[in-house]
Amino acid sequence: MSCTDFNDERALEGMKLKPERYLALCGGVGGAKLALGLSHVLDPSQLTVVVNTGDDFEHLGLLICPDIDTVCYTLAGLVDPQQGWGRADESWNALTEVKRLDGETWFRLGDKDLGLHLLRRALLDQGMSLSAVTAHISRQLGIAPEILPMSDQAVRTEVETDQGKLAFQHYFVRERCEPRVRSICFAGSQAAEPAEGFVRILQDPALKAVIICPSNPFLSVDPILSLPGIREALSDTDVPVIAVSPVVGGQAVKGPTAKIMQELGLPVTVEAVADHYAGMLTGLVVDRCDSDSVQVLEGRLAVHCCDTIMKNTPDKVALARQLLEFISSLEDTP
Amino acid sequence: MSCTDFNDERALEGMKLKPERYLALCGGVGGAKLALGLSHVLDPSQLTVVVNTGDDFEHLGLLICPDIDTVCYTLAGLVDPQQGWGRADESWNALTEVKRLDGETWFRLGDKDLGLHLLRRALLDQGMSLSAVTAHISRQLGIAPEILPMSDQAVRTEVETDQGKLAFQHYFVRERCEPRVRSICFAGSQAAEPAEGFVRILQDPALKAVIICPSNPFLSVDPILSLPGIREALSDTDVPVIAVSPVVGGQAVKGPTAKIMQELGLPVTVEAVADHYAGMLTGLVVDRCDSDSVQVLEGRLAVHCCDTIMKNTPDKVALARQLLEFISSLEDTP
Repeated sequence: MSCTDFNDERALEGMKLKPERYLALCGGVGGAKLALGLSHVLDPSQLTVVVNTGDDFEHLGLLICPDIDTVCYTLAGLVDPQQGWGRADESWNALTEVKRLDGETWFRLGDKDLGLHLLRRALLDQGMSLSAVTAHISRQLGIAPEILPMSDQAVRTEVETDQGKLAFQHYFVRERCEPRVRSICFAGSQAAEPAEGFVRILQDPALKAVIICPSNPFLSVDPILSLPGIREALSDTDVPVIAVSPVVGGQAVKGPTAKIMQELGLPVTVEAVADHYAGMLTGLVVDRCDSDSVQVLEGRLAVHCCDTIMKNTPDKVALARQLLEFISSLEDTP
Repeated sequence: MSCTDFNDERALEGMKLKPERYLALCGGVGGAKLALGLSHVLDPSQLTVVVNTGDDFEHLGLLICPDIDTVCYTLAGLVDPQQGWGRADESWNALTEVKRLDGETWFRLGDKDLGLHLLRRALLDQGMSLSAVTAHISRQLGIAPEILPMSDQAVRTEVETDQGKLAFQHYFVRERCEPRVRSICFAGSQAAEPAEGFVRILQDPALKAVIICPSNPFLSVDPILSLPGIREALSDTDVPVIAVSPVVGGQAVKGPTAKIMQELGLPVTVEAVADHYAGMLTGLVVDRCDSDSVQVLEGRLAVHCCDTIMKNTPDKVALARQLLEFISSLEDTP
C-alpha cells in the first residue's frame, strides 16, 4: 500500500447508502477528534463509538467519565477547542469555593461541566445504567451517533509506578504522568461485562469495520480490550480491524503514550503500535512521516499512510475519509 | 413588662466578660438574621446556633441543607442580601446545563453554592458527621460562633396537604407552599439523636439562656423540638427560654408561617405563638405593633416589646441587644 490519497467521492456516497455500520473504539481527545471526523463522513446511524471508562473515578461524590465526556462534548461542538476536553467558555466558580473550603481541586471541573456531572449522578442514583445515562446525555446534546461506555460496570485503570500503585487520575492528572510506569492493570475488568450495545454491534451482520482510534493503546484502548471476550471477538471477526497510529514520527501526538512506551521498554514507533495490536489488526493507518514503516509492516498487515494530525475539523474529516476509503479498498483486495 | 428600650451598655459589656453561653435555635432566613445580630453583640465563643435540618434533602446526589447554609452564608457575610439565602454574586452555569440535559432545576443551586455542596458530599462520603462537616465549613468561612445541625441523623419534614403528603422541599419550593397544610411530621425524628454538641450545651452550667429565633414555629423550630429529649430539656431547664415572635401585627415577617397557622385553624397572633411554645417559654419578644398583647400574655410569661423587623445589620444588632438585655432583666426579677 503506497501513500496515495483516496479521492473517490462516489464510493463514499455509496457507503452512506448501504446499511453499514462502523464501530470506533476510543479514549479521550485524540479518539474524539477522529470520531468527530467519522460523524461528518458517515450517516450518524452508521457510527457507534465505544469509549474507554478505565479513566472513570468517583470524586466529590460525582462519577467522572473523562473520555465519555470528551467524546460527547466534541461531537456536540461544545468542547474547549484549546485543550480538547472540558467545555468551551467555561467558568470555575464552584471549584473556587471548593478551594476556599479546603477541598480537593486538582481535578478541574468547570461549572458547566459540573451540571452534566450532577445530572449523571442523579440518573445513576435513579438506577439507570451508564449506557442509558450516556444515551440520554447524547440525545439532549443533539449527538446523532451512538456513544457507549465500554461497560456499565466499574473498571478502574491502575498504574504501577516507581512511586507505588496509583489510581489512574492520580497518575494522570494529580501527578501529571511524572512517575515511571512499570505496569498497568484494569481493576474489575474480568468481572465486568462489555456494555450490551457493544456486544450487539460486534455481532451485527451490518458491521463493516472496527476502527481503533489514535488513542493511547495502553491507557485508552487496552481497558476496552481487557473486557471478557473483546480481544477474542476482535481477533475472530471477519470485518477489518483498523487502527490509526497514535505514534507519529517517533512521538505521541498528545499525552504520555511515548513516555509510557519508553518506560515499558518499547520503541516509540508505528511498528510497536502494530505489535501491540498483533493478532487483531487487519490494517494500520500511519502518518506520511512514517512512510518508511510501510515497507517494514507490509506482509504483516495492510498499511495506509496519509496526514493523521488533526488540528481542525477539515483535518478530522479528511482523516476519516482516508480511513473509510482504506477500509473500502481492503474489501476489493482478494 | 412595658415597651421600654434597654440601654445599659455596661450591663452588656459585663455579659461579654462572664463565661456565659447562649444557645439559639433557628431555621433559615429570619433565624439567621438574629444569629448574625447575636454574633455581633456576644463574644463568638458565647454563641452556639443549633439549626433545623428537617428541610434537608438529597438532590442531584448532594445533601442540601438549606437552613445550615443560610446561617453559614449569613454569618460569613456571603449571603445574597436580596433574598436572604444563597450566595451573593452567584452564577448559574451548572444549573443551565442541568436544564439543557432535561434534569430537575426547580431547586435553585448556584455555582458557588454547588462548590460548598460538593465539598460537603465529599466529606460526608469520607465518613465525617454533618456536625463535623458543618464545623469544617464554618471554620473555612471564618465563622466564629459554633454552628450545629440539630442532629447528625436524617430527620425529614413531611407536609400532609390537600394534595397528599409532600416532602418538605417539594411543598416549600416546588409547590411554592400553595397546597393547604393539614399536618406536619418529622420522619426519622424519634430514631434520631440530637447532635452531640447540642446535648453538651444544654447540659453546660455556663448556659445562660435558650433563644428561639423568629423562625417558622411549625417548619423550622418544631423539627428541633421533635428530637428525643429536647422538648423536655427546654421545659425542665433552669435558664430562661425566650422566643422572638415570627408573627408581627397579625402577619408573618416572611414565608408561609401565617398561611400555615390559618390552615391549621390557629389565629395569626403572638398569643398563638406563645401557646405553641407553652410549657417551655419563659419570655417572648414581640414587635411594638403587638404591644396590645403584652397585657394579655402578662401573668403567663414575661414579654418584651421592641422593634423586631430586621432589614439591615443595625436592626439585627439592635434586636439581639434588646433580647440579651431582656434576658438579663429576667435574672433580676425575683
